[in-house]
Amino acid sequence: MATIQETIHQMGRQARAAAYNLAKLTSDEKNTILRAMASAIRQRVPELLGANAKDIAAGREKGLSAAMLDRLLLDEARIEAMAAGIDQVATLPDPVGLVLDAWERPNGIKIEQVRVPIGTIGIIYESRPNVTADAAVLCFKTGNATILRGGSEAIHSNLAIAEALAAAGVPEHAIQLIPFTDRESVAVLAGMDQWLDLIIPRGGKGLIETVVSLARMPVIKHYDGICHLFADKDADQAMAVSLTVNSKTHKCGVCNALETLLVHREIAADFLPKAATALHAKNVELRGCERTREILTDIIPATENDWCTEYLDLILSVKIVDSLEDAVAHINRYGSHHSDVIVTRDEAVAERFLREVDSACVFHNVSTRFADGGEFGFGAEIGISTDKLHARGPMGLRELTSYQYRVRGNGQTRS
Amino acid sequence: MATIQETIHQMGRQARAAAYNLAKLTSDEKNTILRAMASAIRQRVPELLGANAKDIAAGREKGLSAAMLDRLLLDEARIEAMAAGIDQVATLPDPVGLVLDAWERPNGIKIEQVRVPIGTIGIIYESRPNVTADAAVLCFKTGNATILRGGSEAIHSNLAIAEALAAAGVPEHAIQLIPFTDRESVAVLAGMDQWLDLIIPRGGKGLIETVVSLARMPVIKHYDGICHLFADKDADQAMAVSLTVNSKTHKCGVCNALETLLVHREIAADFLPKAATALHAKNVELRGCERTREILTDIIPATENDWCTEYLDLILSVKIVDSLEDAVAHINRYGSHHSDVIVTRDEAVAERFLREVDSACVFHNVSTRFADGGEFGFGAEIGISTDKLHARGPMGLRELTSYQYRVRGNGQTRS
Repeated sequence: MATIQETIHQMGRQARAAAYNLAKLTSDEKNTILRAMASAIRQRVPELLGANAKDIAAGREKGLSAAMLDRLLLDEARIEAMAAGIDQVATLPDPVGLVLDAWERPNGIKIEQVRVPIGTIGIIYESRPNVTADAAVLCFKTGNATILRGGSEAIHSNLAIAEALAAAGVPEHAIQLIPFTDRESVAVLAGMDQWLDLIIPRGGKGLIETVVSLARMPVIKHYDGICHLFADKDADQAMAVSLTVNSKTHKCGVCNALETLLVHREIAADFLPKAATALHAKNVELRGCERTREILTDIIPATENDWCTEYLDLILSVKIVDSLEDAVAHINRYGSHHSDVIVTRDEAVAERFLREVDSACVFHNVSTRFADGGEFGFGAEIGISTDKLHARGPMGLRELTSYQYRVRGNGQTRS
Repeated sequence: MATIQETIHQMGRQARAAAYNLAKLTSDEKNTILRAMASAIRQRVPELLGANAKDIAAGREKGLSAAMLDRLLLDEARIEAMAAGIDQVATLPDPVGLVLDAWERPNGIKIEQVRVPIGTIGIIYESRPNVTADAAVLCFKTGNATILRGGSEAIHSNLAIAEALAAAGVPEHAIQLIPFTDRESVAVLAGMDQWLDLIIPRGGKGLIETVVSLARMPVIKHYDGICHLFADKDADQAMAVSLTVNSKTHKCGVCNALETLLVHREIAADFLPKAATALHAKNVELRGCERTREILTDIIPATENDWCTEYLDLILSVKIVDSLEDAVAHINRYGSHHSDVIVTRDEAVAERFLREVDSACVFHNVSTRFADGGEFGFGAEIGISTDKLHARGPMGLRELTSYQYRVRGNGQTRS
């Protein structure tokens, strides 16, 4: 019997061959297959529910939390959402083949830079079974072959989804799911840089750290969002309150939720009580620096650790700063370079903030919650990258492509 | 006394702070400093020659080969070339600040994607001391802080060059050279992903492999060039001979030199003797597949290993293929995805080759030697990337940048 290593390497070889076939498909051919995938998902609702029931039963036995069981659960509405998501991807423009740049050299050679698929992509993810469809479909749309490795809790659901997709006329080995859920399979996948061009871990910090330490190929990381809002001295205070509340409470368990509020000292005495009232009304716990606690006397102190924490909860740390420079320095030091906002009426101050804050998304007078592929208009999102190489911030289809230089001449030689 | 680890981490912290200062410089300010760097190099010729003499003496004592000693050597002409290179970089357009894309969403938020510096870049390189100036200058032009770690053979030269650059008014810690040359310093540098956004190894395969296995941050790799030329059945045979000879012999020790010639069987009997005559006249040793050796009876056989070898020497492997498909399959299997050429008069066949060969540069009727940042018109080159993420093929200034989304609104919240 083949070892785990042999099986996964064989899948790698197959993915590489499949990638060359995928690269030849036209956009129309890919979209036809995508619509067939959506149909296959809709036709297999009973099978998908049956497979998911096994995972849920096993999860209950293992004592998974209610939140974990909810992430694992498939129901008819969630399966329909998965299918509708695939139909939606079929309608998006295909970035592959786009000419990014073209020029001619004095010697007559013509150079084109053209978008091409990356090739083969490994996706390592945790409990949500819908990632199986989401990730595979975005990679397929961009002509990439995928090898998926989901969490053990969702193995039956994942296998059933992958089977449904494969049955829809997807070219052989274009979408493969690793049937093993032990740790060795992650190590094998992360080590085979001859077969995988990229690996994307989707899950918690522990998973990402593990993949980063093992991977020999590029990894696109989706780390924490420690997002800030800076209420400048020239802020429209009503707007600053509204954006703070929306950024913190619209959905607090996500990476683009607000974690720290910075307030210019000149407006602190006026602004902080109004902000606190609005935040308390939404059950947000505040933790303040010393100066904040001189104004909001009933809140608990923020420690050094609070400035580095992604709460993912209804908690907000609050700090008074003396200047724009101090706000920028705090964000660049303690933030996670994800998404940060300034609220101000002063355009020049806003422009300095946008230029000097070293984050993927910098906002002027907008809620942090707009740091999102859907809100950016990308139509689909594979995640929000906290890397600076290749893809930064919301990643859509474009970020799942590479490029190639195509050069045409008439016999030019170098002398 | 500080340990190596403490010293290098301190350099990392300093590089991060320097990067924030560099990002604020205007293009004019950077260019003024670049010209001052070139002057400083020119003013310090005696010091540079003195430092280099120490390295050369130590290298002789260690028994370095003549080729290694030549790579290590600085003379007045090479120092002037280094200074002229810096002046040249000052004249190039600055990619930082360029708006790559801009759009408005239905809710009125305005999104801009803007080129920004990557931040902090580690460069690990081997014996050539000019890399100290070249790499630091390209990174500086694009607003990145660098930490350089050169080879032990060139340590005196590298320190003298770095000192000259720093004395020219470069912002503090923007260019730092690690004074240690042991292996531990590579491991420390590759491990500190909190301080370095990117690491670029410049050197042999062994060095790159070591960095890849240690690095936690993205690595841009410049691996082998196993480049192919495919003489199609509809090739202009005189052009195919000329391009083969130029690609192989113009400079055979570089990554864009030709290593394998593929010939369509329909022209093999006619073409191969002409190609062999021209190549033998340039002292190229040929190694052929069985069918090739039926035509060129006096050449030695090529083994499986030859198809995977970057000779970097006057050796060429030769194989007869039955079709375009076979040529593409051979290149995708054995090549290094660097640069490959088709010679043909048939435009449709050429277009299929360009689309189906999975290499950074694909050429129609052009010598492989044009796979080069200078020949592409980039003005400067940090290397030729064999990666598919972020930078593929010749890397100029543009590839030393990242981007940031700047979003402007008037109080938009998500509901």
